[in-house]
This record gives sequence, structure tokens and C-alpha cells, in this order.
Amino acid sequence: MERTDYLAYVKARMPEKRYIHTLGVEQTAKAMAAHYGEDVAAAETAAILHDLAKYADVAWMEQIVRDHGLDARLLGWGSELLHGPVGAWVAQHELGITNEAILHAMCYHTTGRANMSNLEKILYVADMLEPNRRFPGVDDLRQMMYDGLNEVFEACVKHSLIHLISSGIAVFPQSIECYNDIQSSERN
Amino acid sequence: MERTDYLAYVKARMPEKRYIHTLGVEQTAKAMAAHYGEDVAAAETAAILHDLAKYADVAWMEQIVRDHGLDARLLGWGSELLHGPVGAWVAQHELGITNEAILHAMCYHTTGRANMSNLEKILYVADMLEPNRRFPGVDDLRQMMYDGLNEVFEACVKHSLIHLISSGIAVFPQSIECYNDIQSSERN
Repeated sequence: MERTDYLAYVKARMPEKRYIHTLGVEQTAKAMAAHYGEDVAAAETAAILHDLAKYADVAWMEQIVRDHGLDARLLGWGSELLHGPVGAWVAQHELGITNEAILHAMCYHTTGRANMSNLEKILYVADMLEPNRRFPGVDDLRQMMYDGLNEVFEACVKHSLIHLISSGIAVFPQSIECYNDIQSSERN
Repeated sequence: MERTDYLAYVKARMPEKRYIHTLGVEQTAKAMAAHYGEDVAAAETAAILHDLAKYADVAWMEQIVRDHGLDARLLGWGSELLHGPVGAWVAQHELGITNEAILHAMCYHTTGRANMSNLEKILYVADMLEPNRRFPGVDDLRQMMYDGLNEVFEACVKHSLIHLISSGIAVFPQSIECYNDIQSSERN
């Protein structure tokens, strides 16, 4: 499948607003990959496909988690956390994507994890900072986008956690593992 | 042992400033216990003893964790997180305290945990808000102290987590379990 096929595939599975967001993530992820010397084609595919399961049925996604040995901690956390890992599973098993770098970037784009690759960090940041995103502080984060991948990634992870906690929204354990890994990497 | 014995025991094991903090925690915890209908004597003992291991040798505390089956996740986190659980162990095995409510309050006063008792919440809050504490936001939190234990406890947990993340300090997994438990309790 090519870019236009992937775009058609996701467009059929999401509202217009989410599709516009997807195009923004694609544009941002490709620009960041080029800037940081990562695989631009992989960034393109991961970005286009990252939200393919965003509107899938939650019960169906939980069945995928149970039937195929995905992280059982995801059960009960709803589509916001299920759609990354399940989207990666669909990309592998229904779209035939074998590039693990792409699959991992899709899998962890919402939660993060410890020991993320550069492509995983790029998709995480691009998803949060693409041009259609609007939230207090987004402009300050965007200004960091090309001044160091680890720096902007850390700032995005912190911003995301503080937003969740300020709002009284539960934090997935893997997101704290991601944050703690950043802090321990800096100490070493 | 009586109150004066406990005070002498901890005074010999900490600098003057920490002892003054301890007296502040005692005063606050007793007032909160009285207000919320909890065991004032238990609050007194837990408060006086809560920091008894704060200045103990880290290698010795880690040995206690390993030799006596305390939570192995504590290893490597330093005295800030070791002193609660190890202090509770010392209180039980060296001071002969058998009241589990006191021991648990001491154990979890820094990290919190899921499913905390009221006494545990009181010591956590009193430790953070006693009159000698100075940090941005402390006055707003103090104003909540007698308007609902769950409310002031949640506000303290959130404040603590946001402070850690803003400062780039790692977050102990049990502290997120504590926070997530508060959020899920509110949903149910």
C-alpha cells in the first residue's frame, strides 16, 4: 500500500476533524524526522496510521488485547489508551506492516514508555504539537520543536502529565515509567 | 513508652529543624484527628515517629528492605522514600509498636498508596501542611484542612505530583497508584 491508500483507509474510519489532525501529524512528523536524521518514510506511515483505531469499538479493542496478549493493563482504560496498541496490531495484521519502528511508534504514541526510539518520540511530539492543536502552552512547546528532540519530548511528557493531574484524570502506569526513564537518563 | 520517650528517641536522631517539623506534624495531625473523629493518640504517636529513620544510613535501610521483605521497588530511591517504610519497621521491631494503623500511617506518609485509611491521609496531609512548611500554594492548601479530609488529601497529592514533575524528579509508582485510586474512587 502507498500513502494515498493509507490516507483513504484512515479517512473512512474517522470524522473530518480527526483526518485533518492526521494530516497535521504527518506534516509535523516528516519535518521532524528530516530535521533529526530519522527515516522520513517511516514517520509518514506511522503518522498517517497512528489514529486508525481511535473510533473502533471499545469492546472489540479489549477483545484484541485479551486474545492477542497485548498489555493487559490497558483493559478498562477506554479508547484513549487502547487505540495506540490496537492500531499497531491492526496495522501489522490487517495492513501487513512489518517495520517494527513504525508499529512501536503507533503503539506508544499516547502513553509513551521507557526507552523510546527517536521515531517514537517524534510521533509522540508531532501528535501533540501539529498545527491544528490548541491548548494553553502549545506555542511555547512548538518553539522547542527543532532545538533538541529529547528536550521537546521531555517538555511534552511533563506538560501532558501535569495536564492530566490538574484535571483529575488517571495516569496510565506506563506514562510514569516513560517520565521516570527520562529523569534517570538525565542523571546517568 | 510514652510521648516524652518517643520525643526523646526521635530528637536524638535528627537535626533541630527536623525536630521542630516533627512537633508541627504532631500538633497538626492531632488537631485533624480530633476534627475528623479519628484516634488522636494514634495520630500523636504516628506523627512523632514518622521521620525517625529520615537520617538513617541508606545502605542500612536498603539492607532492611532486602532482609525483611519490604517493597523491593524502594531500592535505589534513596532516603526520601526509604525512611517511611523503614521507620515503620523500626517502630514495630525496635520500639514494639503493634498498632497497624500507626505503622501503616508511618510507612506511607511520603508515597501514599491505594486504599489509604483516614489516619494515613491525616499524617500525609499534616506532614505537608504543618505550620513550619513553606512552599508556594501552602496557604491555599491549609485553608482546605478542615473542610473535608478526602478533598484536602487529594489536593495535597496533586500538588505533590505536579511539584515533582515540574521539578524533573522521578515519581515512585505507588504515588501514581495513590492518585489513580483517588480518581477511580470519585468515579464510583
